[in-house]
Amino acid sequence: MNKSRLEAFSDGVLAIIITIMILELKIPEGTSLQAVRPLWPALCSYILSFVFIGIYWVNHHHLLHTVKKVNGAIMWANMLLLFSLSLVPFATGWMGATRFDKITVAIYGALLLICGLSFTILAAVIKKTYSQDTSITDALNKSKPKSILSTLFYIASIPISLFVNPLLSALLFVIVSVMWIIPSKAIEKALMEQDEK
Amino acid sequence: MNKSRLEAFSDGVLAIIITIMILELKIPEGTSLQAVRPLWPALCSYILSFVFIGIYWVNHHHLLHTVKKVNGAIMWANMLLLFSLSLVPFATGWMGATRFDKITVAIYGALLLICGLSFTILAAVIKKTYSQDTSITDALNKSKPKSILSTLFYIASIPISLFVNPLLSALLFVIVSVMWIIPSKAIEKALMEQDEK
Amino acid sequence: MNKSRLEAFSDGVLAIIITIMILELKIPEGTSLQAVRPLWPALCSYILSFVFIGIYWVNHHHLLHTVKKVNGAIMWANMLLLFSLSLVPFATGWMGATRFDKITVAIYGALLLICGLSFTILAAVIKKTYSQDTSITDALNKSKPKSILSTLFYIASIPISLFVNPLLSALLFVIVSVMWIIPSKAIEKALMEQDEK
Amino acid sequence: MNKSRLEAFSDGVLAIIITIMILELKIPEGTSLQAVRPLWPALCSYILSFVFIGIYWVNHHHLLHTVKKVNGAIMWANMLLLFSLSLVPFATGWMGATRFDKITVAIYGALLLICGLSFTILAAVIKKTYSQDTSITDALNKSKPKSILSTLFYIASIPISLFVNPLLSALLFVIVSVMWIIPSKAIEKALMEQDEK
Repeated sequence: MNKSRLEAFSDGVLAIIITIMILELKIPEGTSLQAVRPLWPALCSYILSFVFIGIYWVNHHHLLHTVKKVNGAIMWANMLLLFSLSLVPFATGWMGATRFDKITVAIYGALLLICGLSFTILAAVIKKTYSQDTSITDALNKSKPKSILSTLFYIASIPISLFVNPLLSALLFVIVSVMWIIPSKAIEKALMEQDEK
Repeated sequence: MNKSRLEAFSDGVLAIIITIMILELKIPEGTSLQAVRPLWPALCSYILSFVFIGIYWVNHHHLLHTVKKVNGAIMWANMLLLFSLSLVPFATGWMGATRFDKITVAIYGALLLICGLSFTILAAVIKKTYSQDTSITDALNKSKPKSILSTLFYIASIPISLFVNPLLSALLFVIVSVMWIIPSKAIEKALMEQDEK
Repeated sequence: MNKSRLEAFSDGVLAIIITIMILELKIPEGTSLQAVRPLWPALCSYILSFVFIGIYWVNHHHLLHTVKKVNGAIMWANMLLLFSLSLVPFATGWMGATRFDKITVAIYGALLLICGLSFTILAAVIKKTYSQDTSITDALNKSKPKSILSTLFYIASIPISLFVNPLLSALLFVIVSVMWIIPSKAIEKALMEQDEK
Repeated sequence: MNKSRLEAFSDGVLAIIITIMILELKIPEGTSLQAVRPLWPALCSYILSFVFIGIYWVNHHHLLHTVKKVNGAIMWANMLLLFSLSLVPFATGWMGATRFDKITVAIYGALLLICGLSFTILAAVIKKTYSQDTSITDALNKSKPKSILSTLFYIASIPISLFVNPLLSALLFVIVSVMWIIPSKAIEKALMEQDEK
């Protein structure tokens, strides 16, 4: 089986997920300050999720880059990841509509945890399928510290939101997202330098 | 005519169908237990349909894999399949909203039956077009027992939901979906072993 | 400029248009006959539009098949076609919601007319760009009688809906759609026979 | 990293954005003149945004045409552009629903400004990455005057809408859109003539 249709389907689903969230940004009735105010938490929530789906898309891209053929196990692990991510618009809208209520932020954190685990499962399935190919396993090992750290942050965000402050959990999400955006650039530069040598 | 655009269009439609269903998961007003409770049947209904669309995507992938060129008959049989599948979000949402009411579960079963028949028609059209190509007809014959069993389960689900228990019909749907996920892996392993020989 | 991205974008837009219409099929409250009855006109309206978008997709496929490169004029003529078609879900939903009211059926007919004209413009722009290429112009000339007949039917459907009977106009739409599905198969067979010679 | 998935993902997101806007065209209750009247501003708003997203798609196409490989910086600059554009359906719907109210038109102008800046950032990142490749930098420099003029028009549209007349700002948007559609054809013709020499 060729990977191109898997990529095309995943790209389609991710593109729809990332765009569908905007439908939760309900158009306010009128333009008064009072009508516009509920927009802010919804917009913040949307931006956060846009960045997360963006990170998943980039990482998905990287993960499948070295893979040549896909089998049923990879296909279904990929489906699991897409399923987890498809719940993000719902959690995003709910978190925004309740203005970062502690319960919805905890649920959002739990969903990010599930998405992270789904990605780990997909990576593990690919690793197992291509266990002889060191270039793939090396690339996967490289992002392991970030994966573990993110997982810890997601787990921490749940009690923090419930018992301390939901905005602190939101801050954890922002830190995780920044962590995934920045270093990938650093790694790439290192790779490019290596290429030049 | 080339099959690549048919695949791209089908992937697009399937990606939208699978993602659009999440829009039926209405964001609850508030976070009270009472507000959240109607979510459960909707979520279960969504998971079930996600798996079914996923199965159709995988099988569609397999079906078109060996096909090289498409004609008008294949195109329109494919359209019929996409049309049937496009009704799944509606049936899913309805079944979820009525908490697996016996009538909506029966309608869901009838729709799965229609989708199954549409797939069979598409397979038959491809088979007829490529009647000389034994590799295609062989692959189609292999999944015949599963197709027949699924059809029987779908047919049975309608009276069972109406006169016995809708949850029993839902169980039949789960059995069918598991049947399609698991064995495809088994077949694949067998194929891989053959390749190694 | 390469045509592959134009095709991919058009496929994406058409896939979304064809699937988005299902969102107009509002999930009924409950399962009583009274709740379900408004579904029928909406479902009929949806089926009709699904077939029309399907026809446009197939014809768009044929039209671009022989084209190798696209210029700005082709791109924007294509945009005009996509824009016209993007209004179909709206007209479909309106016609369904008003149970084939004479005004909405007339508007639907007018929209089909606009879509047809947009397609003719796109075909004309392609024809002009590739005026030396007889294979393209020949293919376009072949579907001319059908285009003219469809246009006449669309024009007729407007006064017929307003002053005679909207269902008669709906019948005209069905005749047009059947006309485009059936003969394309006939032409293809003729082409295949030619190929064999 | 290959650019094909970046293009496919961007095409997907743009196709969804351009089509999702139509969902804001709420189906009127009935067919009376009174029910239909609120449609006009919504339709005008939709047409304007359709053209703008179309322009971005064409320019995105041109921009990535000469690029061979993408790095993380290009990916994230592209994400920023897609994010800005994903807010267009919201601003479009709001502007239409308030019948071109001065505040919503000013917000629409501000959003177009943000989209324009995001595109400039993407172009700058590509330029920096491929600073040695004169064919890319030349192509980017060619559209600079239009970019600057558009930016000025967007900036002007904000105070004009707030303090003079929102319809005047809408006129500025129309002028910008026409400016981007027409000359691209002129440039192309010039390019084609060059090719013939």
